[in-house]
Amino acid sequence: MERWLTGVERKTESEASSKTKNQNPCDEAQRCRLPRNARLPPQASLDGALSALRSVCGEDSVLLGEAVREQHGRDESVHRCCPPDVVVFPHCVEEVSALAKVCHKHRLPIIPFGTGTGLEGGVSAVQGGVCFSLRKMEQVLDLHQEDFDVTVEPGVTRKALNAYLRDTGLWFPVDPGADASLCGMAATSASGTNAVRYGTMRENVLNLEVVLADGTVVHTAGKGRHPRKTSAGYNLTNLFVGSEGTLGILTKTTLRLYGVPEVVVSAVCSFPSVQSAVDSTVQILQSGVPIARIEFLDEVMVDACNRFSSLSYPVTPTLFLEFHGSEGGLEGQVKTAEDISQSNGGSDFQWAVDVETRNLLWKARHDAWYAALALRPGCKAYATDVCVPLSRLPQIIVETKQDLVENRLTGPIAGHVGDGNFHCLMVLDPGDPEEVQRVHLFTERLARRALAMDGTCTGEHGVGLGKRALLCEELGHAAMQVTSSLKQMLDPMNLMNPGKILQPRGG
Amino acid sequence: MERWLTGVERKTESEASSKTKNQNPCDEAQRCRLPRNARLPPQASLDGALSALRSVCGEDSVLLGEAVREQHGRDESVHRCCPPDVVVFPHCVEEVSALAKVCHKHRLPIIPFGTGTGLEGGVSAVQGGVCFSLRKMEQVLDLHQEDFDVTVEPGVTRKALNAYLRDTGLWFPVDPGADASLCGMAATSASGTNAVRYGTMRENVLNLEVVLADGTVVHTAGKGRHPRKTSAGYNLTNLFVGSEGTLGILTKTTLRLYGVPEVVVSAVCSFPSVQSAVDSTVQILQSGVPIARIEFLDEVMVDACNRFSSLSYPVTPTLFLEFHGSEGGLEGQVKTAEDISQSNGGSDFQWAVDVETRNLLWKARHDAWYAALALRPGCKAYATDVCVPLSRLPQIIVETKQDLVENRLTGPIAGHVGDGNFHCLMVLDPGDPEEVQRVHLFTERLARRALAMDGTCTGEHGVGLGKRALLCEELGHAAMQVTSSLKQMLDPMNLMNPGKILQPRGG
Repeated sequence: MERWLTGVERKTESEASSKTKNQNPCDEAQRCRLPRNARLPPQASLDGALSALRSVCGEDSVLLGEAVREQHGRDESVHRCCPPDVVVFPHCVEEVSALAKVCHKHRLPIIPFGTGTGLEGGVSAVQGGVCFSLRKMEQVLDLHQEDFDVTVEPGVTRKALNAYLRDTGLWFPVDPGADASLCGMAATSASGTNAVRYGTMRENVLNLEVVLADGTVVHTAGKGRHPRKTSAGYNLTNLFVGSEGTLGILTKTTLRLYGVPEVVVSAVCSFPSVQSAVDSTVQILQSGVPIARIEFLDEVMVDACNRFSSLSYPVTPTLFLEFHGSEGGLEGQVKTAEDISQSNGGSDFQWAVDVETRNLLWKARHDAWYAALALRPGCKAYATDVCVPLSRLPQIIVETKQDLVENRLTGPIAGHVGDGNFHCLMVLDPGDPEEVQRVHLFTERLARRALAMDGTCTGEHGVGLGKRALLCEELGHAAMQVTSSLKQMLDPMNLMNPGKILQPRGG
Repeated sequence: MERWLTGVERKTESEASSKTKNQNPCDEAQRCRLPRNARLPPQASLDGALSALRSVCGEDSVLLGEAVREQHGRDESVHRCCPPDVVVFPHCVEEVSALAKVCHKHRLPIIPFGTGTGLEGGVSAVQGGVCFSLRKMEQVLDLHQEDFDVTVEPGVTRKALNAYLRDTGLWFPVDPGADASLCGMAATSASGTNAVRYGTMRENVLNLEVVLADGTVVHTAGKGRHPRKTSAGYNLTNLFVGSEGTLGILTKTTLRLYGVPEVVVSAVCSFPSVQSAVDSTVQILQSGVPIARIEFLDEVMVDACNRFSSLSYPVTPTLFLEFHGSEGGLEGQVKTAEDISQSNGGSDFQWAVDVETRNLLWKARHDAWYAALALRPGCKAYATDVCVPLSRLPQIIVETKQDLVENRLTGPIAGHVGDGNFHCLMVLDPGDPEEVQRVHLFTERLARRALAMDGTCTGEHGVGLGKRALLCEELGHAAMQVTSSLKQMLDPMNLMNPGKILQPRGG
């Protein structure tokens, strides 16, 4: 549980070395207390590597300062900060490859870093090593408007890409909320509100450039290729999508783009129960309406949003819907969805077409994270992200709400219900170990509830540090064996983001 | 080129053994002339294995007859028939696993067989071995209507599944034309006309049960799991989708289902040029119309269809479109598409809503294969399937048509233009070696033309036997190394469908 605590603890070297004597080698939280270099694998040598790293990308791009290391040792999760020993800022794939070769030679762990907006501790340098910050590689390289695709470097974020695309009539719809880097989103198999219509990163990455642990540069679909579909050999692209930096460093991604819809209609609808909201979702999907977003807030979340944003939505389970289409093509869709909702006891739609009113209408959904945090000022939030088959959603949400109440936990619910994926936004006081423990036990119960309903412990945040044991339960022994073999095959020295997805070897 | 010839050649054992002396070990066509058992790897032993195979699935389910072996040694391609040494018919995954263990012990190649409707020689037993015909495993196992998914055994075909789903309001849209088995479609990463809206098998398989070469049973997303999305670990599902039987035997697939659209509208539109038809396609996609199918026929194909089906379409490049949606939601889509087409010089839409008229309207597209064959009675057809970025389609089609004319070849064109994927339906006389050679050289030029335009040599048929050299050109050395390592990792003895996707080792 200690990894849930935030902040970096700094110890003197003597304190640290006295700590190591009784240390459990599998406890990253403990390891993170050690000073720079003390956590490296026995064969690894940072000092010998530094001059080589500097000669690759210049003195200015190899940083050892405490502040910069700490900044790169945490993401937006509640996992403890584990700073790397050094942060490098390569400018191009050739430098990434050369830096990886240096790390490989010196047995130094490599931790790729995009924007640090991950939610599962994916950038924690639990064994120390070299953080590859990719933010200096921020070019949009190849925009093919007529082909509906673009290739970007790993420092390009989704908002930067969409700003770049503004006058093209195209956009990239995958939207996890945060302004994450697109390669980071590929690395964690991110999705978000639009996935019900446009898919997740798994469906939207056409090609990747990857630097392997030994510095080899691989183009998963062949260099520069960007057909919209292919049956040419094994799907190497999707081997790296979702690999969370444990198989290689993503240095380019080619993404599908979509035409900006001519018309967008937003709507909000209140329901008497979770069941009626989810039933409406299923029936809307069944009707063939190509709904773009269908988001659920429970009454606790709606109440929090009302307070935070001075809104006055009825405090009941609520759906936020969005329809994308062409002029004249949407009326029927909205009508179908409204008819279905009403037949399940939903209210009349509040709906809007112009941007301003749409933003106002969706304000509650957009502000959900901050509204949750505002329930308990000074606290931190941790979002669960289980995903279950649609039919199990009402049951799991009802049971989970009961669990929250019984365990005196604050956890308003917001969900991408079209995918069966929902978040409990757990608001907790990180300084209260007893509460931290209660939240931890709650999230484990929630994950196991999802597994018992044929779902997954993570719909979109990834495994990172916190869900490694759950992953074993989820996949079973044989699939975990294949997973381990893949890791062993592509990264035999366990240098790529060690300790993520898979438990430490022998741990 | 010899592998292009059809039919099984039977030789006496002495003829065969005299052949082997000067045989090129990489030439499957030569190997296919050998009698049963003579092609097996040196360590392999069929005779020792037969009783073990029989004890697993019963005497009646282990067949050695020449007719049944020949029937299982070819698909619908022009690749020569290479019969396996024995055909087994397991009834359940336990039997598949036990049979695989027998093969593993005796070093016998395993060739999975679904319906034999593949187009790249994927079932040819080029090294002999044991064909696993999966047609006795034909249960629809778990239909979850509210979850929009279903799990099927490998003998279930897409038509059988859609018949099963008839009264549920759901359907499975991926449609490669043939009534292939769904696991076979997963194995080749199949797609077809609906992919532009519903995706290919890569996007529609949620989970797989796979038997590895050593008999291990793996559930790629965890046993019985079927969330609509997941970020839990490496994407093992898509490692096996498209692996063409070279990594394991697919014994179950869980598939996404979709609501049957309330309304379907079909339309046909003639264009003055390839460019104007493709420009219309791009603009329709850009407009955000969620078009379900957008198919292109060139004027040679239209002419063939007119003759074959007594139709009277203008003999020019033509688009066949299909729109899926809800009542009242389609008019706008059709209007947008028609406006765009007309602005590019297209004719007024001929369009239809009721099934009968729609079928009539699409008759030309549905009959394309037979119409092409009818151009030269007694000949065989071979379909190319390159796929390029959309913007390159007009150029590659124009250049390819010129190539066909210059080389006196019959190859009407039908394409899934929304994906940049098109087929030249090569009609050839297999008894004319000179023509066979001309077709072979043409298809290689076509593939390299696609590669030069950043496309792929195979958009949906897979690599099989015929595109292995092209795959190396397409992916490049590093990605081929990863491909080989994956094969080596999951099938170290090279027993799973050997000789497909990858060139024989040392060959």
